[in-house]
Amino acid sequence: MRCTYVVTGCAGFIGSSLTDRLLAQGHKVIGVDNFSTGQRRFLEGALVHPNFKIVEIDLLDLGALKQAFAGGQKVFHLAANADVRFGVNHPEKDLQQNTIATFNVLEAMRANKIKDIAFSSTGSIYGEAEIIPTPENAAFPIQTSLYGASKLAGEGLIQAYCEGFGFQSWIFRFVSILGERYTHGHVFDFYKKLLDNPDELLVLGNGLQKKSYLYIQDCLDAMLFSMDNFKDKVNVINLGTNEYCQVKDSIGWICGHLGLKPTLKFSGGERGWIGDNPFIFLDTAKLNNAGFKPKLGIKESVIKTLEYLVANQWVLENRE
Amino acid sequence: MRCTYVVTGCAGFIGSSLTDRLLAQGHKVIGVDNFSTGQRRFLEGALVHPNFKIVEIDLLDLGALKQAFAGGQKVFHLAANADVRFGVNHPEKDLQQNTIATFNVLEAMRANKIKDIAFSSTGSIYGEAEIIPTPENAAFPIQTSLYGASKLAGEGLIQAYCEGFGFQSWIFRFVSILGERYTHGHVFDFYKKLLDNPDELLVLGNGLQKKSYLYIQDCLDAMLFSMDNFKDKVNVINLGTNEYCQVKDSIGWICGHLGLKPTLKFSGGERGWIGDNPFIFLDTAKLNNAGFKPKLGIKESVIKTLEYLVANQWVLENRE
Repeated sequence: MRCTYVVTGCAGFIGSSLTDRLLAQGHKVIGVDNFSTGQRRFLEGALVHPNFKIVEIDLLDLGALKQAFAGGQKVFHLAANADVRFGVNHPEKDLQQNTIATFNVLEAMRANKIKDIAFSSTGSIYGEAEIIPTPENAAFPIQTSLYGASKLAGEGLIQAYCEGFGFQSWIFRFVSILGERYTHGHVFDFYKKLLDNPDELLVLGNGLQKKSYLYIQDCLDAMLFSMDNFKDKVNVINLGTNEYCQVKDSIGWICGHLGLKPTLKFSGGERGWIGDNPFIFLDTAKLNNAGFKPKLGIKESVIKTLEYLVANQWVLENRE
Repeated sequence: MRCTYVVTGCAGFIGSSLTDRLLAQGHKVIGVDNFSTGQRRFLEGALVHPNFKIVEIDLLDLGALKQAFAGGQKVFHLAANADVRFGVNHPEKDLQQNTIATFNVLEAMRANKIKDIAFSSTGSIYGEAEIIPTPENAAFPIQTSLYGASKLAGEGLIQAYCEGFGFQSWIFRFVSILGERYTHGHVFDFYKKLLDNPDELLVLGNGLQKKSYLYIQDCLDAMLFSMDNFKDKVNVINLGTNEYCQVKDSIGWICGHLGLKPTLKFSGGERGWIGDNPFIFLDTAKLNNAGFKPKLGIKESVIKTLEYLVANQWVLENRE
């Protein structure tokens, strides 16, 4: 059924990829972005599409947001401060851009009688989980980052709106996403450092941190599959692959692909930064048992990401 | 060791009782309250005490809050919008008074290099728990009220500050508290209704809702005991008794004590209101195993609350 979707963060990595996918499926998209980190170039295709409308506002402007959502039927709330690592440098950023922004999105939905919301939460929300791979119903976690805390707050708000106002929600706890339009994360950092100095690579932590990743197109498939197949009032779903890798594995793939053999220097410690989780690996049985399997593994996703960055140097130059 | 405590919500039910206790123990107290629901009469003793200082500000005024916390060594953050039932009437209230206010408290602490925080969270945070009595490490919950969601957000923020800024925290998940200075809740509602009409009592829901309660002085004992006995970076502790009662049990005690035999009318359904949890009962083994036992049971606490309201009719008149 054709539908009008609102996509917040429509100029971001995931938001722009989703926007293109929804338009290709024949849906209409109202895209909301303030372009603070979003890239206009990611919307080159969408902006000339008759079914796309861009609304350039900040999610903290509730009045404008209520107007922007007019005519929308379902919301993908993907806009966020996704900067996990530097939360302690500006704690108010996660509160405003993640927690308060999510509240505003819910209020804009309520004002426009929109009831369906998909939300990009994070595997970081499990803190340092005792059970790995970590299922959705793991033990009540302790937050270790302002980013995780702000996403937890967003999840709670969405759930309360489901109970209090008859909303339906799909809350996706993502591992890190890789692929085309990727603009930050370890592949970005390592590639940028190797361009500066191909002979030496500084790695935060001891390189043994274990992380899981998912390819962007698999991520989009998984979200759309979930909204078709999970029908509870509140649907919490881990998004990831059935594997993880160590930071040093990924470095090996990156350097191999680039034909480089840098000396590795490690900053040391099992955490790359304060609040870094040395092992993130989500149990995706809920999604898999419903019939979904991602197409790409982690190594292929890392290589595709690297190929994208090599071909799109502007992404590297655009951020500093 | 004598200490200077900051108590937010110092004019509230729990805050004023704690303030009196801390002053009696020889500590200094900086009390913060905006008197929106706090009662000046609860501070009659404190206000004339040389070790008490009252700062009348709103927690949303971060600049004033930073000044108010100067000289504090430990913080009890008890100020909150405690109105679980009417959250859907004004969703922004829980966000502002609970989530953002907690963020401001943490920032005021950081500005004053205060690292220890005790926080009044809630058993409502477990949503409709599958395991009852519910332990601290129950399965990752789904929020059912804006109040619960806002307290969850507060917990997450505090935990992230512990990891990011070296804070230490005691997060108390309270059942409902009863006793002297109690100003809202079921005993209040029923007594007020019975004063209006002793012959008939309207009960929200089917009267079979099961809830647990704790007496105010036991609550204070438990908080102070916990801060002496639990020494993790983040200490999450359920506060309650080892028993629960049904709403109709409590009605029986109240009516028996007042010598009334009203006809009971039930609004019906297992929930008293949207988001009401039909069974709240916390597992307090963590606290009990450390050596703490509450002195009063639920029935005695209900009677003490009722005796307080009978002797302090101004509390009833003061709120509508």
